[in-house]
Amino acid sequence: MFREKIKVFDCTIRDGGLINDHQFDDRFVRAVYKALSEAGVDYMEIGYKNSKKLFPAEEFGTWKFCDDDAIREVTKGIPSNTKISVMVDVGRVDVDDVKPKKESPVSMIRVACYVKDIDKAIYLVNNFADKGYETTVNIMAISCALETELNEALHQLEKESKANVIYAVDSYGSLYQETTEYLIKKFKHIIKSKEVGFHAHNNQQLAFGNTIEAIIHNANYFDATVYGLGRAAGNCPLELLVGFLKNPKFDLRPILDLIETEFIPLREKLEWGYIIPYAISGMFNEHPKAAMALRDSDKKEHYREFYESVKGSCGID
Amino acid sequence: MFREKIKVFDCTIRDGGLINDHQFDDRFVRAVYKALSEAGVDYMEIGYKNSKKLFPAEEFGTWKFCDDDAIREVTKGIPSNTKISVMVDVGRVDVDDVKPKKESPVSMIRVACYVKDIDKAIYLVNNFADKGYETTVNIMAISCALETELNEALHQLEKESKANVIYAVDSYGSLYQETTEYLIKKFKHIIKSKEVGFHAHNNQQLAFGNTIEAIIHNANYFDATVYGLGRAAGNCPLELLVGFLKNPKFDLRPILDLIETEFIPLREKLEWGYIIPYAISGMFNEHPKAAMALRDSDKKEHYREFYESVKGSCGID
Repeated sequence: MFREKIKVFDCTIRDGGLINDHQFDDRFVRAVYKALSEAGVDYMEIGYKNSKKLFPAEEFGTWKFCDDDAIREVTKGIPSNTKISVMVDVGRVDVDDVKPKKESPVSMIRVACYVKDIDKAIYLVNNFADKGYETTVNIMAISCALETELNEALHQLEKESKANVIYAVDSYGSLYQETTEYLIKKFKHIIKSKEVGFHAHNNQQLAFGNTIEAIIHNANYFDATVYGLGRAAGNCPLELLVGFLKNPKFDLRPILDLIETEFIPLREKLEWGYIIPYAISGMFNEHPKAAMALRDSDKKEHYREFYESVKGSCGID
Repeated sequence: MFREKIKVFDCTIRDGGLINDHQFDDRFVRAVYKALSEAGVDYMEIGYKNSKKLFPAEEFGTWKFCDDDAIREVTKGIPSNTKISVMVDVGRVDVDDVKPKKESPVSMIRVACYVKDIDKAIYLVNNFADKGYETTVNIMAISCALETELNEALHQLEKESKANVIYAVDSYGSLYQETTEYLIKKFKHIIKSKEVGFHAHNNQQLAFGNTIEAIIHNANYFDATVYGLGRAAGNCPLELLVGFLKNPKFDLRPILDLIETEFIPLREKLEWGYIIPYAISGMFNEHPKAAMALRDSDKKEHYREFYESVKGSCGID
């Protein structure tokens, strides 16, 4: 599948940071940045830009705050065309922390929100666009959005926002190809003046398959992470996405080296990927937080009990 | 996705046996049979029916030969509507080993072949059909079949064979949704009097996604294995397929119990699943044997070197 407009967007450090309170050390982050740069990946999202007034800096790693100086330090001296992105959550960012683009190493700011917060997201994204950044709005928990509210939000984003890209985010890893197709077609139908993006989670081993589905239906921005690193079941594996795309600008080999040297050892320390409780929460279209709590408990492999509890909480029983 | 005609076909012990020379002990096989029976799975393939003239019995486990008495023993006393299947490979079976259906605990015999062996497969499958078995022909390495030869084989199967089901087998785990769609549509176009089936491998984490694709395009027989157990990258995880299908006859919970008690410990002893060299062989549409050899060597994590060697052998370099 060669389509020049397709952008591969790595969010390894940002989504992976949700597992370890963003405590990746500089050496690791540099290794990821270097490999992505050599591989020709378009964007690297390095973390969240959260307000230090809301989150005490001593309790979290650097990449929960993404100070410009920290980004300059970690990327220094590495030849790269890979653009740096940071994510902000509605309600957790202080817009005054965001300097004009020309004073910052950041190229893109992505605003994550639920459908209900779309007005706040538009306010933020327009603020960042006015400061000169490329911007996106990422609509989370898309599999739980009410149809009428989603339609209205998309029309608002098309008309009122200066975002370059609008993302559908399958936070719960519960979409199948048919639901992915339906959503991407809806997005493309309403979002005419911007690009459409897709962010998958791998609860049901469908992150890559759904990403291909979104490619087929003409979204152009695709999130992925090295070896699928990310909260709970993780994300679309970047190596599979790069292997699938036929754009000669990509080189898979630096990513393979990175997995060998950094991610195989990391997987011994951090847990993510295809794990049955995450598959269950995906099947039931539920946030993975209950499954994450289970994995932290002494009942981590008690699948039937967990299945019954999720089924009950969905009112299916 | 509720379609009554859909059959879930478990091949855990058969495909998993390719990892350990079919050395699963009776206790384990009984546990699998019991769980599948409770879950309402339609078929369980228990192994290969190979000729003991070709393979010395002392070097392999019971499930490389699948004597009727061994099957009776391992299923004895377990209430079940799950039908037993065995697989035969063209050139490795002695048809005289196969008794008439009425004397056997086996319900279905599946003949695995490459496109070039289609005449031999038809001879075998008609022999077994005449003995009263349900039968299938499973065309392996479908991603390498020449278009004209595949077309001819499918026309022959439709006209000359008594098989109930014709399977497309993605032996190399190299299909994507679009190629799966193309092949299943081709099968359905030619195979009018029989059902169409699909067997996936999970090299690129697409086994489940491609299986859904084949469901969408009206194949009706789907292979899967518990926790994806199977050679190399393994197969479509049965638990995901059962979770996706909305037929109320299925109960996922016995499968979850089985994974918890048997497959989590087994994964500590046997290797299968998403492993980078298998992903690479899938990307390059190659048999996994080179990747399997790599995983058995002291270069098991040398991904770049392996990538270069596969790339070279494909003549892509």
